[in-house]
Amino acid sequence: MNEKTQQKDNQVVSGNALALVSGGMDSAVAAGLAGEAGYRIYALSFDYGQRQRIELEYARKVGSWLGAVEHMIIGVELDKIGGSALTDPTPVPKDRKDPGIPVTYVPARNIIFLAIALAWAEVLSAKRIVIGANAIDFSGYPDCRPGFMEAFQQVAETGTKAGLEGKAPLIWAPLMNMKKAEIVKEGIRLGLDFGMTCSCYDPDPTGKPCLHCDACRLREKGFFEAGIKDPLAG
Amino acid sequence: MNEKTQQKDNQVVSGNALALVSGGMDSAVAAGLAGEAGYRIYALSFDYGQRQRIELEYARKVGSWLGAVEHMIIGVELDKIGGSALTDPTPVPKDRKDPGIPVTYVPARNIIFLAIALAWAEVLSAKRIVIGANAIDFSGYPDCRPGFMEAFQQVAETGTKAGLEGKAPLIWAPLMNMKKAEIVKEGIRLGLDFGMTCSCYDPDPTGKPCLHCDACRLREKGFFEAGIKDPLAG
Repeated sequence: MNEKTQQKDNQVVSGNALALVSGGMDSAVAAGLAGEAGYRIYALSFDYGQRQRIELEYARKVGSWLGAVEHMIIGVELDKIGGSALTDPTPVPKDRKDPGIPVTYVPARNIIFLAIALAWAEVLSAKRIVIGANAIDFSGYPDCRPGFMEAFQQVAETGTKAGLEGKAPLIWAPLMNMKKAEIVKEGIRLGLDFGMTCSCYDPDPTGKPCLHCDACRLREKGFFEAGIKDPLAG
Repeated sequence: MNEKTQQKDNQVVSGNALALVSGGMDSAVAAGLAGEAGYRIYALSFDYGQRQRIELEYARKVGSWLGAVEHMIIGVELDKIGGSALTDPTPVPKDRKDPGIPVTYVPARNIIFLAIALAWAEVLSAKRIVIGANAIDFSGYPDCRPGFMEAFQQVAETGTKAGLEGKAPLIWAPLMNMKKAEIVKEGIRLGLDFGMTCSCYDPDPTGKPCLHCDACRLREKGFFEAGIKDPLAG
């Protein structure tokens, strides 16, 4: 089936895609790949009571870079639930060596974000929901793994009106099997200024990364292996 | 496996259960059944931008009746997304005859509610998430059907830390295959005062039901078939 039926700026348009944009590098690259594939991008971010609300400023910059038709920021009071170093006063681990799922895991976060994305995708008749989940250079979060994505696809097929009509959006995680270095290279290829992304779990009030949390260390490893300097590394 | 290891008021306690409570009759009866089964009830409701916010007052009454350990009301800005007569200015259909999914369908609502419930269930180590979904006397909503519940169970198993540890809560929809009249009888048996529930999609400002929307008509049919007078029917 050829989905490409409309024109956008002399480009072939594949339809609408809804991209989850956190302000971090992975979601920016994933959404960039959807834009490159010809989708009209609708960006979605969440004000979920995260301690580091500065990430929403980065998300705004990424949404502009993407040329998003609309960038919606939806409030969800996950801080009432807590259970994570990102939403309650638990300290963010630095230079972590212990294996296992870290305390920065936010219970069911991607499930909640994808669920809300499904709602908007249905209103937009979006063909894809784009998420920057990655299961190679990651912290072991359960909701970033292929098995979860497949299960959530079934939820989209069975639990929405679009799904019953055979039009459920594809839950698309194009970075799932990439190493962080590959993600960096894809971002460079797409023309992403990584200085407009922030991956850190514990930045200072100006947004400067701590360089010692899991997210900073995975990012540093990615840039190092790609042989590229991170504009945020100072 | 015998889960019943603790005592509560001289009763055997089965563990924690998180109950989705809307203020309507189905969720009240479903949660009541979980209480009867010996679970400590944690009630969860949502301020999701619904036009009929009065339902949250009914939800509070139901939470009290349940003797919930805690009743959390979480804000989610679904009115930004719209796409439903319950969250945008689309009129609620009265005495509807056309088949199909009505405009009162809120895109992905149960998916979103269950996703947020999963987060709190994880913090509470809850064994069950109780939802009043019913696929017999219902409006045809996709996220009230058994196939969706099974798919969401897989999400709970694969997408959460509890799931990876083999401790995902059971998504429990005890009313799934009951007729509305059976639900009424179960509520009576449990001692529920149906006057503290409101099912209507379009009540007046005092909470008085319209008696003509889908929800009112299904409720009326249920009470009629059960041979019981609805305290709200006037």
